[in-house]
This record gives sequence, C-alpha cells and structure tokens, in this order.
Amino acid sequence: MIVVMKSGATKTDKEKVLDRIRELGYKPHVIHGTTRDVIGAVGDERKKLVLQQIESMSGVESVVPILKPYKLASREVKKEKSIIKITDEVSIGGRQLCVIAGPCAVESEKQIMESAEAVRTAGAHMLRGGAYKPRTSPYSFQGMKEKGLKLLAKAGRMTGLPIITEVVNPETADLVAEYADVLQIGTRNAQNFELLKKIGKTKKPVLLKRGMSMTIKELLMSAEYIMSEGNHRVILCERGIRTFETATRNTLDLSAVPVINNETHLPVVVDPSHGTGHVRYVAPMAYAAVASGADGLIIEVHPSPEHATSDGPQSQTPEAFMEMMAKLKLFAEAAGRTL
Amino acid sequence: MIVVMKSGATKTDKEKVLDRIRELGYKPHVIHGTTRDVIGAVGDERKKLVLQQIESMSGVESVVPILKPYKLASREVKKEKSIIKITDEVSIGGRQLCVIAGPCAVESEKQIMESAEAVRTAGAHMLRGGAYKPRTSPYSFQGMKEKGLKLLAKAGRMTGLPIITEVVNPETADLVAEYADVLQIGTRNAQNFELLKKIGKTKKPVLLKRGMSMTIKELLMSAEYIMSEGNHRVILCERGIRTFETATRNTLDLSAVPVINNETHLPVVVDPSHGTGHVRYVAPMAYAAVASGADGLIIEVHPSPEHATSDGPQSQTPEAFMEMMAKLKLFAEAAGRTL
Amino acid sequence: MIVVMKSGATKTDKEKVLDRIRELGYKPHVIHGTTRDVIGAVGDERKKLVLQQIESMSGVESVVPILKPYKLASREVKKEKSIIKITDEVSIGGRQLCVIAGPCAVESEKQIMESAEAVRTAGAHMLRGGAYKPRTSPYSFQGMKEKGLKLLAKAGRMTGLPIITEVVNPETADLVAEYADVLQIGTRNAQNFELLKKIGKTKKPVLLKRGMSMTIKELLMSAEYIMSEGNHRVILCERGIRTFETATRNTLDLSAVPVINNETHLPVVVDPSHGTGHVRYVAPMAYAAVASGADGLIIEVHPSPEHATSDGPQSQTPEAFMEMMAKLKLFAEAAGRTL
Amino acid sequence: MIVVMKSGATKTDKEKVLDRIRELGYKPHVIHGTTRDVIGAVGDERKKLVLQQIESMSGVESVVPILKPYKLASREVKKEKSIIKITDEVSIGGRQLCVIAGPCAVESEKQIMESAEAVRTAGAHMLRGGAYKPRTSPYSFQGMKEKGLKLLAKAGRMTGLPIITEVVNPETADLVAEYADVLQIGTRNAQNFELLKKIGKTKKPVLLKRGMSMTIKELLMSAEYIMSEGNHRVILCERGIRTFETATRNTLDLSAVPVINNETHLPVVVDPSHGTGHVRYVAPMAYAAVASGADGLIIEVHPSPEHATSDGPQSQTPEAFMEMMAKLKLFAEAAGRTL
Repeated sequence: MIVVMKSGATKTDKEKVLDRIRELGYKPHVIHGTTRDVIGAVGDERKKLVLQQIESMSGVESVVPILKPYKLASREVKKEKSIIKITDEVSIGGRQLCVIAGPCAVESEKQIMESAEAVRTAGAHMLRGGAYKPRTSPYSFQGMKEKGLKLLAKAGRMTGLPIITEVVNPETADLVAEYADVLQIGTRNAQNFELLKKIGKTKKPVLLKRGMSMTIKELLMSAEYIMSEGNHRVILCERGIRTFETATRNTLDLSAVPVINNETHLPVVVDPSHGTGHVRYVAPMAYAAVASGADGLIIEVHPSPEHATSDGPQSQTPEAFMEMMAKLKLFAEAAGRTL
Repeated sequence: MIVVMKSGATKTDKEKVLDRIRELGYKPHVIHGTTRDVIGAVGDERKKLVLQQIESMSGVESVVPILKPYKLASREVKKEKSIIKITDEVSIGGRQLCVIAGPCAVESEKQIMESAEAVRTAGAHMLRGGAYKPRTSPYSFQGMKEKGLKLLAKAGRMTGLPIITEVVNPETADLVAEYADVLQIGTRNAQNFELLKKIGKTKKPVLLKRGMSMTIKELLMSAEYIMSEGNHRVILCERGIRTFETATRNTLDLSAVPVINNETHLPVVVDPSHGTGHVRYVAPMAYAAVASGADGLIIEVHPSPEHATSDGPQSQTPEAFMEMMAKLKLFAEAAGRTL
Repeated sequence: MIVVMKSGATKTDKEKVLDRIRELGYKPHVIHGTTRDVIGAVGDERKKLVLQQIESMSGVESVVPILKPYKLASREVKKEKSIIKITDEVSIGGRQLCVIAGPCAVESEKQIMESAEAVRTAGAHMLRGGAYKPRTSPYSFQGMKEKGLKLLAKAGRMTGLPIITEVVNPETADLVAEYADVLQIGTRNAQNFELLKKIGKTKKPVLLKRGMSMTIKELLMSAEYIMSEGNHRVILCERGIRTFETATRNTLDLSAVPVINNETHLPVVVDPSHGTGHVRYVAPMAYAAVASGADGLIIEVHPSPEHATSDGPQSQTPEAFMEMMAKLKLFAEAAGRTL
Repeated sequence: MIVVMKSGATKTDKEKVLDRIRELGYKPHVIHGTTRDVIGAVGDERKKLVLQQIESMSGVESVVPILKPYKLASREVKKEKSIIKITDEVSIGGRQLCVIAGPCAVESEKQIMESAEAVRTAGAHMLRGGAYKPRTSPYSFQGMKEKGLKLLAKAGRMTGLPIITEVVNPETADLVAEYADVLQIGTRNAQNFELLKKIGKTKKPVLLKRGMSMTIKELLMSAEYIMSEGNHRVILCERGIRTFETATRNTLDLSAVPVINNETHLPVVVDPSHGTGHVRYVAPMAYAAVASGADGLIIEVHPSPEHATSDGPQSQTPEAFMEMMAKLKLFAEAAGRTL
C-alpha cells in the first residue's frame, strides 16, 4: 500500500502516519518526492483494508492499494488452470469447451423435456433451466420452485445431461443442491455474501455470474468468498455489464475473458443470451467468446420463444441453436479447443 | 405497449402478431406509418411483461413499453406523499427532515455509546450502526452480529433515539427485526428479491438503498416487492451509482430525488457518505440533498475515523457532524422544512 | 413518434396536442388505453426531432421516437453491404479482412520505416501512424505534424501500403487529405460536427471511431453527417467505450459489431489496442473481433514499445504482431473470410 | 510514479526497469515487499506520461501515477479562488452568484429579445443563446450563425446583459469572439484540443463544459490546454455525465462541484437544464447546485418551449424562471452568497 501525502503536509502529519503504519503492523518506507512524499507500507496483505483508515489522517492525500485483495482465486497462488469436473463425462476448464443450454425457466414437463432433447441432439454438454426466478417485478412469473427442480432433474436423467439451476436464497440452497449438478449464482446475487458463504459450504460446483456493475476484481472477491468457505470449484461467468448503450440489453464485456485468464486459474464461461438480449446477436457473440479464450458458453434455448414466460426475445429456437453449434465447431478448432 | 414492425414485414407477419396480441387478452390498434406499421396493444398492464415475447416474432422490430411497471409505489395510485411514522417523535416524509447518523459498524460498547451521544447532541433523529456487514472481501470485518444488535439497542435506549440497522439474510431477518426500529436493505441486496419478500412480511419500516447500477424504475420495482407483501412503510435511499468517475467512491445521483418525488409517494433520504466516499465532500452534498427535496439524510459519524473498521475515510468526526448540522438548518429553512 | 399522455390529462390537453401534431404536418392517431391515451403521429421522419417539443405541453408524459434518425447509413435504405475500395489492392467490407497496423504516432523516419516493413512482412494491408495527436495533456507529445505526414507517406510508398492518419482540425483537413489514403476521425472528435462536415466534403474514405460514450445510434448519426455532405465511403470503428471497469483502458463493446452489421451497410473494423489498453489482451480480442463479424482490425505495432512516445503499453512488438497474424488466419477461415 | 513489479519478476527485469527510470531522468527508490517489489520514481512531473512506457517492460505489473497531471489549474499552485471578471458589473467566482439564462438557440429577433427581457427582469446576470449549434443529427436546425450572433449581441446591448455563446470551430472562433463576452465550449468539444488551443489564444473568458464521459481530472486537463496558451480566465461547467439511468437526459454529477472546489481555483457553474433534460427537475437541481457550492448556474429559458427548435422539454418559461429565481435567493443566503 502506498500513502500519498499532500504537498503541504507537515512533519507532524508525516510522523503520525508513520506511527499509525507501524501500529498496524507494517513497515513504512518514505520516498521524498519533488513536491510531496509518498510512504510505502510493507507487510501482510490481510490487514490491507484496515490501512485505508489512514486516508482519514491529517496531511494524507490518498491511499493507493498495490496488492491484489484475492488469494485463493489468484493465478499467483495457483499457476495452472483449474479443470472443474462435473460428471465423468463433463468438465470445464480443459481443452474441451463446455456448452450449457436450455430455457430461461422450467415452465412445464413438456417444455423442459423438449428443450433437453433439442440441446442434447445439437451437442450441448449441460442443461440449464430456472426453478427459482429472480424477476425485477413481483408480478412476473417467479418459477415453479421444487416442482421445477424435479422436472429439470427428470429431463437431465432422460438425456444424460448434468443440470445447472439457480440458487436465490440461503434457506433453499440445500434443497436445490439435492437436485442440481451445478449451482448457479445469478447476477443480482453476485454480492449477496450470505448466499455466497452458504454455497461455499456445499460440495457442488458453482457457476458465479458477474454482477451487472461489478468490476472483475470484485467478481474474483465474490469467488474468494465461496472458496474461503472450502468450495474451490467455482466457474466464473461473464454475462454483460450495465452501460449507457441501449442497443443491447447489457454490454457483453468480452475482454473480461482474457483478463480473467490472466488473473485467476478459475475457468470462465460466457452468456451471450443475457449479454445481448436479442437472439440475432447471440451466435456472433458466442463465436467471439470462444475466440477470446472462454472455456464454455451458457445459451438460452426454448422450443417456442414467442411463448416463453421470460427472456423470449433472447432465446434461440432449437434450429438456430443447432446451426450455431455447427459453426461454433470451426471457431473451437481455430482456438485449439474441441467442442 | 407498442409493437413496432420492421419496414419489410409481410402481411402474414402482421396478422400473426395481431392474433398473438388478442390471444394474450389485449386489443390491438394498427397505425399505418409512412415506412412501417406500429401496433398499440390495449389492456390490463399486469400481463405486460408477457407481451415482450412478441419481440421474438417474425417481422417485429421492437416492443416499446408504455405503462409503468409499478403500482403500489406509484404517484398515480396515491397522490399525497406518504409520511412514515417510526416512533411518536420521529417520522419521515413530513415537513420535518429526518437525520440518521452513526458509525458504519458497531465495533464496541464504548464506540457505539460515544457515537450515539454525539449524534443525539448534534440533533440527529435516528441512530445507525451495522451489526451484519456485507463486505467485498471475506477477510474484512463482518460485523458483531447479535452482540452488535444488543449494543445498538442499548445505545438507542440510552439516548432515546430509534435505531436502524441492516438485514442481510432472510434467515436472520426476524432476529434483526426484534431489535431494530427500521430495517435497512443495503445496496448489494437491493435486488435480492427473496430478502425483499421476507422483509415485506415484517411489520417494521424499511429503508431501501438503491443498488449501484439500478435505475430509479428498478428501485421502485424493488419497493413494489416489499409493498406487495403487505409492508407499505418503505423509505427510499439514494446513495450513489456506479459510473466511470473515480474522484468520488460513487456518483451521487441527486437528480434521483426530484424524479422520485415525481414518480412515487414514498419518502426519500440521501446518503452522502457512501455517495462521495470522502469526508470532505459529505457536508456540501448533504446541503445539496436537502435543497433538491430530500426528506432526510443518513450520515456516517465515528468518534475516531482513523480507527474505524470500515468506511473511515467517509466518516465525519462528531465535531464535523455538529458543524454540518448547524449549517444544514439554514438550508432546511430555505427548503421550507424544519430540522 | 408516439405521444404518451398522463393518466390525468384533460380533454383540452389532448386536443391541443392533436392540433400541434397537425400543425407540424403529421397525422395523429389516438389509441384509448385503460389508464391513459397514446397518440401516434404519422408523417415524414425528417421533422421528427421537432416533435420532441410536444413533451413540453400540458398533460404529456413522454414522447417516444419510433423511426430511426439515420437514413443514408441505414440498412433499410441500402440492403447490401458496402465495400469501400481504398486502392486497387485494398478494400474493406468484402470477403477479405483488412488489417491496419502501425505505431500510435510517427516519431522518426527510422521508427516509421521499421514499423512499415514489419507490418507489411506480417501481412498487414494498411499502415497507420499519427502525425497530429490529440492528447489529454497539453504537455504530452502532440505529433510531428506535416513532417510526420511526409514520413508516413514515404513509408507507405516504400512498402506499397496505403496509409491512414488522423485529422484533428478542419483547418488542416485538406493538408492531411493530400497525403493520406484514408482519413481517421478519432474518438474525441466523433461528435466534432464541424470536422465531420469538412471531411464529408473531401473525396477520401474515412475511418470514423466511436466516441467513448457514444451509443451506436449516435455513431451512425455521425456517419450520416459525413454521408449527407456527399462522402459515402465511411468505415466505422469500435474502439471501446467508457465504463466503470478499470482492468482495461476502455470496455471493448464487441457486440456493437453484430448490431452495426444489422443496422447499417457500412463496414466496421475493431481497435483492440485502444479497446483494452494492454498488449496482453490485444490478440484474444482481435480473434474475437473477427469471430463477431468485423471486416477488419486496426492494431498498434511499435518496434520498441517501451520507448514509444504514446500508447506503449498497448503496442505489440513486430514479433507479437506476426504471431497474432498467423493465428488470426485460422479465425478468419472459421468466419468464412480471407486474410 | 510507482512501478509495481510482478511477484515473479527476475533480478534482470528489475535492473532493466531501474536503468530505464534513470535514463528518463528520474531517481528510483526500491521498496522490497513481502510478495513483490515496488519502485518509486522521483523527478519532474512533466515527463510523467513517458514513464507509462515502463508498463511494457518485462516483469512489470503496472505503473501507478501519483502526481496530478494539471499545474496551472491546480489549487496547489494557486491557493485562492479565481474571480473571473466579465464586465464591470458581472464576475464569477466571488461571493455573488452568477446566473446565466436564455434560450438554447437564437431563433429570431423576436424570440431572443423576449428571452433577454424576461431573464433580465427575473434577475439573470448574463444572456445565453446559441448561434452555431452542434446537433446529433445533420438534419436538425444548425443555428443562425453570424446572423444569430448579431441578434444576440443586440439583445445583450438592449438589456445591458453580457452575452455568452458557443464556439464550435477554430475557423469561426475569432468571429464569435468579436461578438461574445464569454466563449462557450460545448460538451462534445470538451476534448477538441485544437479548438481549446485556439480559444486559449483569445482574450475572452471561456466557459468550458464537461464532456459527457470526462472525468473531473480530464476536465481540468482541458482547462489546462486553454490556460497553457495564455488564457487563464476559464469557468468550468458541470452539465451531467452519461450513465445507465434514463429517467434524466444525463446524470448531473453535483459532487463534481465540491471536488472541483477542492482541486482547482477556477470557478464552477452548473447546468441543470442539460443535466436533467426535463423542466420539472431544473429548479430543484438549481437549488441543490447552489447548496453544493457552485458559483453560478446556466439555465435554458424560452418564451414558448413547445415551439423551441431545440431543447424545448428542458426549457423553462419566463414565469417558471422568475419563480425559481425567487426561491434561489433563499438558498443563496443559506450558502452565504448573494444573488
């Protein structure tokens, strides 16, 4: 951590800062600049956030963090990429891409069965489907709850696909974990720390979506929450951030993929359905995600998008999904991956 | 809802859209434009979100919502401003401003007692203090939990100030509600819909903070979640949104105050401490908040900011708070309010 | 255009709005809704912006635009993709991708000659280099000006590569046009309408960069400025937008590529160097750009990035560029393009 | 400047960085950390941006700037607030607030005369009106140009109010300067550095609007451009930044006012008309601006907003302006200012 003193800071100001740095267990180093001094504080990064207090002291201009706040998630701690095994057949983070597909929400037995068949036929590796739906409006469809979980599990068994579904409440987390192969944390819960801690105590792999206005650093801190409770099987998911642009539902930040690949050993998948919000942009962004280095995709597919209870405009038909998967194979090969 | 057809839409496309609108229980009205048709759909707004499906249909360019998605929170439904009574002495939304003050977190008996005394002396109306702290890092201080609640309640009793504290988990909501006069929903939980529903079932007033990247419309939808469960005593809180600017911790969106006053009958308070992140900017933004029409303020005050476990750089000393309160009185009068 | 009336609008309010719509030369259509009326205004879109005035009238809630404000740039007006010919060998928008490469700024004869040789050897199609540099600080290197143009032109002749360079001032536009094969409008001048009009009167193709906080619609409006002056040879460039994320210099909005391909016939290239700001992220985002459907790339290459007068951290070495070009060929093929 | 080395940086990496720092004329200071080294570089800040190159070197994680890039605009260089004199009667930056008012554009002699009379009667200190209009669409009204300047000047003479109008092109800057008392740089030209340099050579005071996605630091750098050419009479203007919120046209960043007051000696005015985009929010935000410490306001007033050629929805009627001015006096007094 670097403490930048004001140009008019007095000697007493500086001495008090040095004392406080030592009191907090750090070793201070003063660099005398041409117009102001800066003080480096060397020590264990765990106490780092406490150092921020120093910004309140007289004569201090600002406190600049140097070290990264995440540990378990960091590439510096674990150099080789983590491969997260879901079942004997399916894992994420290795040479093989992992494509997760299915409807936004489980709506009926017929709908989820049709969806599961369609995505398996097209080559998907995992089935998605929401049973608990976090919706912006209390008047919107909130999901089929446990009944939806049962249907999803049945569809998974029938097709042999592992299933992923969202957890929205610490109170129902264990119930969801009984059915799901992978637990999903949605974008609006990405900093619901109580939920993260709870999930960190389960044994199931977790797909953690980036919050709408979360920096990549904060996403890694949320992963750190799960990991610090003992669950290291975290898959990160870029799904678009909120910006001023309205042509797309969110702004898919694909450059997060190489940044994540540089900063952490955890695998990363991309959600171009929520990222763009319009089905016509899903396929190009899926290709781009693979080209940028993503380990997988999560795609909304619905047998009849114009009858979907949610996210219809961004859901592919089974035909569109199959067509996309065929082209995706070419991009996977260019990226040195298999599909 | 307005359905905008593509300029090249066929007659069949249009007929299918008209059929689907009728099927969903709406009455369609076609307007023939110079380059394309637009179709108005008239009917009960509850089904509104379902209409969005139509965007998936062939020949459709976009679907434009017209009606507001919130009902109970809307000024159209309830014209007069809601005054939310906390205790016999304290309420929010009337002529008298309500100033909430205290430390970010309850750290010790000494600290919270000193804080409570200081803010009461300076004229605050309510005491704040976190017992459950949602922190970005799992390695940061997470709050004193129930012990913190007890200390806060004691400080409240001693000073006669009602207390407000944050709820972070549906599992501990009832416990917090036993101690607190007002429940706070923090910015990272503003779209934690399970928590909102749970809080909607309690009888305590709620201070709902705006999420970091939430539109005002979405904030009102979160209020609607709480209200639709039966709890109508919701106080909105503007605390800064996330933008590209880094000179302040967040960008305090004060224009949200007149927008909220125009759109809803619910009262609104402003948090300039989190909004700016630097103590030197808190007072001017507190004055500005009152001038813009806010019904109150929530301010971080700590007896020794450079020893605070969290948010030190944005916490006022008791002296600074007292000085600010004196000047605030002038702005309150200019705004036709009392302090 | 759709005029949404307030739920409490009076009959007189509505009649005045209808009169004003007719007065402006439009034909109004009233749709009676359950809680409020909406009025469609049908007519020539040119006067569209004037209709916005109606929002000032009593009883009006909002005015919602329906038609697109751009004409010449629109896919609705010209269905087939525009191929912009630069020289007999080089064009943009066809099956062949166009890679533009070179240093941020022309710094010396040696530097630009080395750069030109290097990028030609690696397979680039056009040479970039700034002679007039718009820098955030007045104390930064402002470019070699006409001397830089001469050196760039020489390097272009020597290598047979067409050259592109930035225009920053209407006063020097003609001078730059004498040397350059393609004129570049930088991100900070993307809404410098006087410069756009001036460039619209030249005969040279233009590469128009998206402004840092411009929507795609506004980018197309800036293209429309150039086109409406008679110069239809506009190449759009996505180079990153400004968001809250700081891990990258800007947030490269790759989904702008399919949106642009849907909305306009103009070709689009991507600048991953400015888009990411760090050389380690340039190659993955270049691959992703091609996968998303871009017609070309613009890449910063410098013989010695750690000695560059500007943009060193985002400039590739000649070796890195050559390596990237080899892999890019695979992605080009996957996308059905040639390199 | 602080150079942060990677945790795996070699001794050779570090030595090369130290050499390069010395070569650039700085004195390096190494701080050995627990997981990585950081190197402070002490020296003249002018070369600061060149140091950024070091980020390209092997073993370097990042380069963190410490010093502020602006000099002439900085509070560190000039402690006392600058009072900018416009005429014998009007100045900005002193105890008296300065209210600038008038229509968005000069549309006709009648319109500008009526506007001028109205704003003078209500107590405005300066008259605004655009003669050259930078519009998003080439098909929108582009201003009356020199004819507009003449009418504006006539209205100024008639009412005794100094006039302010926008400069959009270096080629017409001298012409505008002949008529105007204050030159305005609009938001889209705030980083049009050629225009800034040109304006820096005139003798007229300049009102510099913040760009839509400019940080406050960048705004001060644009002021520095004008000042470094010799013109120190710069008035800064906060007019809203671009965010995801759509309830207002822009997000008025009022906390920029105390930040600017802390960082620079230059005066600052606020534009709540563009900042909010809706007339119903203009007055509350004007009061808030004064409470936050602004030195003045710039307000759009039009005799008949529903007939305005631009910005009708955000323009006050003369009656609304007069009413606002009466209340504003109370807030000015609370802020220790006169109106």
